[in-house]
Amino acid sequence: MYKIRTYNTIAIEGLDQFPRDRYEVASEIAEPDGILLRSASLHELEFPKGLKAIARAGAGVNNVPVQRCTEQGIVVFNSPGANANAVKELVMAGLLLSSRGIYAGMNFAAGMANISSDEMGPMMEAQKKQFKGQELMGKTLGVIGLGAIGSNVANMALNMGMNVIGFDPAISVDAAWRLPSQVQKAENIQQLLGRSDYVTLHVPAIPATQNLLNKDTLATLKQGARVLNFARGSIVNSADMIEALDAGTVACYVTDFPEPGLINRTDVLAMPHIGASTSEAEANCAIMGAQQLVEFIEHGNIRNSVNFPNCELERTTAHRLCFANQNVPKVLSHVLNLLAEQNLNVVDMLNKSRDNIAYNILDLETAPSQAVLDAIADDEQVFHLRSI
Amino acid sequence: MYKIRTYNTIAIEGLDQFPRDRYEVASEIAEPDGILLRSASLHELEFPKGLKAIARAGAGVNNVPVQRCTEQGIVVFNSPGANANAVKELVMAGLLLSSRGIYAGMNFAAGMANISSDEMGPMMEAQKKQFKGQELMGKTLGVIGLGAIGSNVANMALNMGMNVIGFDPAISVDAAWRLPSQVQKAENIQQLLGRSDYVTLHVPAIPATQNLLNKDTLATLKQGARVLNFARGSIVNSADMIEALDAGTVACYVTDFPEPGLINRTDVLAMPHIGASTSEAEANCAIMGAQQLVEFIEHGNIRNSVNFPNCELERTTAHRLCFANQNVPKVLSHVLNLLAEQNLNVVDMLNKSRDNIAYNILDLETAPSQAVLDAIADDEQVFHLRSI
Repeated sequence: MYKIRTYNTIAIEGLDQFPRDRYEVASEIAEPDGILLRSASLHELEFPKGLKAIARAGAGVNNVPVQRCTEQGIVVFNSPGANANAVKELVMAGLLLSSRGIYAGMNFAAGMANISSDEMGPMMEAQKKQFKGQELMGKTLGVIGLGAIGSNVANMALNMGMNVIGFDPAISVDAAWRLPSQVQKAENIQQLLGRSDYVTLHVPAIPATQNLLNKDTLATLKQGARVLNFARGSIVNSADMIEALDAGTVACYVTDFPEPGLINRTDVLAMPHIGASTSEAEANCAIMGAQQLVEFIEHGNIRNSVNFPNCELERTTAHRLCFANQNVPKVLSHVLNLLAEQNLNVVDMLNKSRDNIAYNILDLETAPSQAVLDAIADDEQVFHLRSI
Repeated sequence: MYKIRTYNTIAIEGLDQFPRDRYEVASEIAEPDGILLRSASLHELEFPKGLKAIARAGAGVNNVPVQRCTEQGIVVFNSPGANANAVKELVMAGLLLSSRGIYAGMNFAAGMANISSDEMGPMMEAQKKQFKGQELMGKTLGVIGLGAIGSNVANMALNMGMNVIGFDPAISVDAAWRLPSQVQKAENIQQLLGRSDYVTLHVPAIPATQNLLNKDTLATLKQGARVLNFARGSIVNSADMIEALDAGTVACYVTDFPEPGLINRTDVLAMPHIGASTSEAEANCAIMGAQQLVEFIEHGNIRNSVNFPNCELERTTAHRLCFANQNVPKVLSHVLNLLAEQNLNVVDMLNKSRDNIAYNILDLETAPSQAVLDAIADDEQVFHLRSI
């Protein structure tokens, strides 16, 4: 039996991914093969011997000591894209809330409880003009960051009749390929900001994106633009944003990351970090995390790791050898020589590297002996060796 | 010069539709050819002599005495569909607000003004789960009424990955044709209500739709459905809706028509009738109303009238005769005989009827004499005669 230790309440749809005949899944397992968690912090945890992988049901992994995992040969997975639709839908709400007096209008209506039914209708008609807004159709949305969420948002906006301009200095060919061709390509962030009626941020919080919207970049914004931040608080410099709001450069700032200075301004709409807060997103994240653990534990395949190279090979024999090694010369030839000496034929093989780690999957015609496994393990550059 | 009297502030985009060389447009014109208005009531107005048409920039015409207009041969126009996109976009906001704790979450964040920056983030993370919701993707939206707004809403929902089921007993072939084929057809309202996770109303307020959602129909709703009313308050029986909310049959009611009993319930989201409150919708309505007046005053064409038959003929000669008559036999032959007696050749002609009114456009090869016009006007079934 494989053993999976859970932290936090994991959505049942995720737990169901572990076949009962091969897995024990519980929160009280001492020597797990894998860990599946949400937001619990593992920074203080001494990793149990035999732990092979950790899967985070969610995008961010700042509750996992990734560096230490890498050193100990533990593969860390996250679930990118699993909450993309949840965020996309909240971005749509943010676009609409920023455009029209919906929130103010609801608060106005909520204050009318003591008015008679006869008075209420005329009162609404008389006051509604103060909640008038603008439509999304025909306006231009600038999408900064075109990963799973950003490209979903771009598509959605096109469907609503918006023009879409995108900017992503780190976009992959695959992501660019997925993007509808109607999305215009901005050459730089200033060009995007200058042309957009709405700007939405979908970049990760990394050093390069810290304060991405600041005094200088905000100065290039189209006057009266609306800005949405459902990515991370650190991407927008709040003090500079408040200045831009005061100056009217930004007509409305919608943020999922409230800060004291942003609260109780009529031109700020603040939500309590609910971008991914849907049942479906929680289920998707749990399913994705669980499937990645199963695939790795049983077949050594790595999908959506944050510290190991992604490496997937369709299994062609009953005898699979997986190992990781320091990404230095001669390790692979050494291992292949050891196999050749034992007349072990390699049917299929995949080697992928990431920074200073290489990871290898070899499907062998016959089972390797304990002796050859020990000989491979003796290579001091090799770690995380498994015959599965 | 043609003269147009305006009531209310009409969007500038609409006023620009009247060419300055042929029209005077003002709020103080005594003997107008046409009236363009928004919500001002004309019920007490004695219509000026020579008034030919009234255009309402908006969909409803309950501020215009339509029956009296008809009796006096005054054509009344409205602007159907001009605010369809505005309503469609607010329906999207309503779908999202009903699905997730957006409004409650924003109110929660707004109450955090006196908390320090350091405390705020952890506070949001700890509390956000109470604002968790569900996604639209994969859910079923029932659209009752598939006119300009309903069909737009259906399309939008399909684009968001929803399943859509529609019901409209009065749908026209044209409207059905426009509808995406993925919209499933409900055979009756009960079937639609039983299958929908979300229900949105887009029928006019007429006797047949009064209390359309009542105790009986609400009883057929799928448990926990969300209901949106951006059509008219009278379509939903509020007392019955409150019972359905109390029973949990309806998980959330989003209404643009607040009433005292609906205010300050966490399962009701009330807006102050802002469905059409966008600058674009106001401009579209004003443009449409103005264009209809110009087309009618100069060419006798009728488009989007609420009391006369729609009747449009491309002009082929310089001499056009337009008249309306009681929809009884022999009027047309009498008029044609009068023309024939004067050797006036009819090049093109269109006759359309609606209830007890017939309307006619005749393009003549040569100009009719005053004598023949007088003879036609003498037919006591004929009214609203114009040579233009």
